Amino acid sequence: MSGPAAWFRREGLALLTDFYELTMMAGQWREGRMDRRVSFDYFFRALPPHTGFAVSAGLGLFLDYLENLRFDDSDLDYLRSLGVFDDDFLAYLRDFTPQCTVRAVPEGSLVFPFEPAVQVEASILEAQLLETALLNFMNYSTLIATKAARVCLAAEGEPVMEFGLRRAHGPDGGVTGSRAAHIGGCTSTSNVLAGKAYGVPVSGTHAHSWVMSFPTELEAFRAFARQYPERCVLLVDTYDTIKSGVPNAIRVFQEMRERGMNVRPAIRLDSGDLAKLSKLAHKMMAGAGFDDPLIIASNDLDEDLIADLKRQGAKINGWGVGTHLITAFDCPALGGVYKLTAIQSGNEWQARMKLSSNAEKATDPGRKQMLRCFDAEDRPLGDIISLEEHPPHRTRGTLAGRLQKNPHLPAHIEGVARVGTMLRPVFADGRRTAAPEPVDRLRARAQAELAALPEEYKRLRNPEIYRVLLSEELGRMKDRMMTHPELA
Amino acid sequence: MSGPAAWFRREGLALLTDFYELTMMAGQWREGRMDRRVSFDYFFRALPPHTGFAVSAGLGLFLDYLENLRFDDSDLDYLRSLGVFDDDFLAYLRDFTPQCTVRAVPEGSLVFPFEPAVQVEASILEAQLLETALLNFMNYSTLIATKAARVCLAAEGEPVMEFGLRRAHGPDGGVTGSRAAHIGGCTSTSNVLAGKAYGVPVSGTHAHSWVMSFPTELEAFRAFARQYPERCVLLVDTYDTIKSGVPNAIRVFQEMRERGMNVRPAIRLDSGDLAKLSKLAHKMMAGAGFDDPLIIASNDLDEDLIADLKRQGAKINGWGVGTHLITAFDCPALGGVYKLTAIQSGNEWQARMKLSSNAEKATDPGRKQMLRCFDAEDRPLGDIISLEEHPPHRTRGTLAGRLQKNPHLPAHIEGVARVGTMLRPVFADGRRTAAPEPVDRLRARAQAELAALPEEYKRLRNPEIYRVLLSEELGRMKDRMMTHPELA
Repeated sequence: MSGPAAWFRREGLALLTDFYELTMMAGQWREGRMDRRVSFDYFFRALPPHTGFAVSAGLGLFLDYLENLRFDDSDLDYLRSLGVFDDDFLAYLRDFTPQCTVRAVPEGSLVFPFEPAVQVEASILEAQLLETALLNFMNYSTLIATKAARVCLAAEGEPVMEFGLRRAHGPDGGVTGSRAAHIGGCTSTSNVLAGKAYGVPVSGTHAHSWVMSFPTELEAFRAFARQYPERCVLLVDTYDTIKSGVPNAIRVFQEMRERGMNVRPAIRLDSGDLAKLSKLAHKMMAGAGFDDPLIIASNDLDEDLIADLKRQGAKINGWGVGTHLITAFDCPALGGVYKLTAIQSGNEWQARMKLSSNAEKATDPGRKQMLRCFDAEDRPLGDIISLEEHPPHRTRGTLAGRLQKNPHLPAHIEGVARVGTMLRPVFADGRRTAAPEPVDRLRARAQAELAALPEEYKRLRNPEIYRVLLSEELGRMKDRMMTHPELA
Repeated sequence: MSGPAAWFRREGLALLTDFYELTMMAGQWREGRMDRRVSFDYFFRALPPHTGFAVSAGLGLFLDYLENLRFDDSDLDYLRSLGVFDDDFLAYLRDFTPQCTVRAVPEGSLVFPFEPAVQVEASILEAQLLETALLNFMNYSTLIATKAARVCLAAEGEPVMEFGLRRAHGPDGGVTGSRAAHIGGCTSTSNVLAGKAYGVPVSGTHAHSWVMSFPTELEAFRAFARQYPERCVLLVDTYDTIKSGVPNAIRVFQEMRERGMNVRPAIRLDSGDLAKLSKLAHKMMAGAGFDDPLIIASNDLDEDLIADLKRQGAKINGWGVGTHLITAFDCPALGGVYKLTAIQSGNEWQARMKLSSNAEKATDPGRKQMLRCFDAEDRPLGDIISLEEHPPHRTRGTLAGRLQKNPHLPAHIEGVARVGTMLRPVFADGRRTAAPEPVDRLRARAQAELAALPEEYKRLRNPEIYRVLLSEELGRMKDRMMTHPELA
């Protein structure tokens, strides 16, 4: 198996972890606490600015990593060279295979702040080891899938092509970023490796260099039309969009029509006043008898620029989005965290909670389940995070709970017609509990959930805040632990 | 060889390219233009906001990629499945090995807008293929090395530990990001895989979960001190920093001292008012007889927050920087581009230039060399981009040139005592022309160049703009091509 296959399968990533995870593991090991079983939650506290939902993504990458998680000789040699770890602990790592149980929200589902999107139950050593990789996979993919969903909402159903690889954070930022962008709604990517690795559809036009490499723009366009008559999108701004690019493109499309080809003219604008140029270009093409041209725009677009171009009546009906999508430019990190919530003691689970000076950073204790409440039209109304051992009654009507940040305060969700269970088993006994899901299925799930989500959560500015409550039992427990820190 | 080694060596990345590169290649191939030799420049037009310099990084990764660039059967099978490429072209790809000549500014050097940091000379097919990967490697690494240099400038020589892996854009965003952060000046990383892959020093403390996994904070601290007496940095904010964390830490350090250990107490603050808490903690530790504690701060730090904490007299002398560094949060993309500058015609090189509606996007034509002018104290004064075939006289005194954006206007650099040549051969005949440079040497180069750079370019706000001129000959040529577009 060649290099990239190993990469896609997330092999050789055992050392993709923070050094303190390994020192903590070795510490717990030497303290004789290696068999203590714990439960950790992955969640984020805040959505990116202006954003009312997140598209959960990255779980498939994490499961690939888990299935292939082994320390090889070169890993152990490196760790030994640091002079910090003793041979017994290195032998433990050599024999390590994942024994964790993982439950998670299905990839492509919508998630909201404070919701445990992934829950890992494992020995404290293993749970610690997995932290960094889990966060790395989930944070980035969820960030990009969410950004892509916003861009696609702004494009109002018109195709969005992701082409950010050249500005992505390394090859993996590009490849798994393309995967996440597709899950979030993009129709295709320019990234061929993402096409090979994950089956994301690939697309593209041509670059300025194609035009510049021919003696004239017209010759360059003719050559491109000759080579790619079926996918002939001409980039018209190398020299002068209106004086040269569009007239030359029209001439080539006319020549194709004269040769009897059924041609839909297609151009790409990559600089200048996109609103004005698109209207002018549209008028020129209509004047030449091409009523329905495809006009693709690119050049540092994001959801706000797309919405603004639409507001101006720009004649654009295809969108190429690169830098701002693949880096989530206006907020390039999702601050997801992974927090200890419970420790097994005998046959019991003891809930744990982090307090700290920032009340915001207080965690929700205990092992959990999560319920999503739907109305009679199957639109989500709100979610309830509950203790696993005390699930609230799956009921219609009104569900009572407590506020996440002020768990002494009661709250409720009304008009519930159906309740769905969000956390499902995905990994046990060293392997996935179901086959990997292809990206088109993940994309379809996200599309369906976004379609069902009421408009007020999908606004590009000031979205409504989706309701996430703690169950009565969880709220009471959290309230008690906050007021009695010795219980935390 | 195992997975990560293939990854580090940048194997299996032949398809890490935009789809349009391959369609343009196939188009040039079928047009019979496969042997045309061209020259492309990599450069960026703008530095990140508030930034007066860039630390060039990523070249080593690009050269690794070049040395390993082959299309394997799975790549060709995937391309064939797209139904766009014919067998002749796929056979060309199967036999492809890099034949390019690359010259570049050494990795770790300072570079400025419009400077050709990498110059690729190759057949038009090969030059096109390399574009996306080159941009991906150079843009991200240069971005992070530059951000790291700013963070380290703010820390005024105190150690900066990079620990952004959990918020990085995928594994590679983390691993090559750590490499770039080290080149830019960070002392260590939390990322163990970056330690193994590139020899970046690793470091770390412990997490809140370590504290939470013990019955009490004091027991957790004692256990950590027992396990890591030599590297005992205690995280003091799990429950209450001042009431619990710092007193418990002091108690443990006192116990260590009582056992005859020569202990320098070290704590980490990860939440709350870092200025106030650090002063209080310092006072409490001084009161217990520990005059020189190490107080590490973390929690969404960046160069501005560090500068502000220093302004407040915070008693912090170690800095942990994660999210904002590894994602270059306030400007997460460097807009580097790769532009055709010349085409070989017989034995001659014909200069090429992109014009377009945005005058900013006009390129500098021709194959180039770049000179850096130094004063008598060996401080850089400015750079001159010249045509390769017309190097300006390497002279002392005043060097004349033209303005890059207004090449009809003369300009000059005065007080020149020494002139250095920036672009050096790095790849030819399918291999590197020199051995790979280890990251500590790249870091040392960046440190030396930053030390020599006058303060006015290193300010965190409103830095002076470093002077980059075109040589007389290049300026004249550009001016002529701008006023006579038919020459472009």
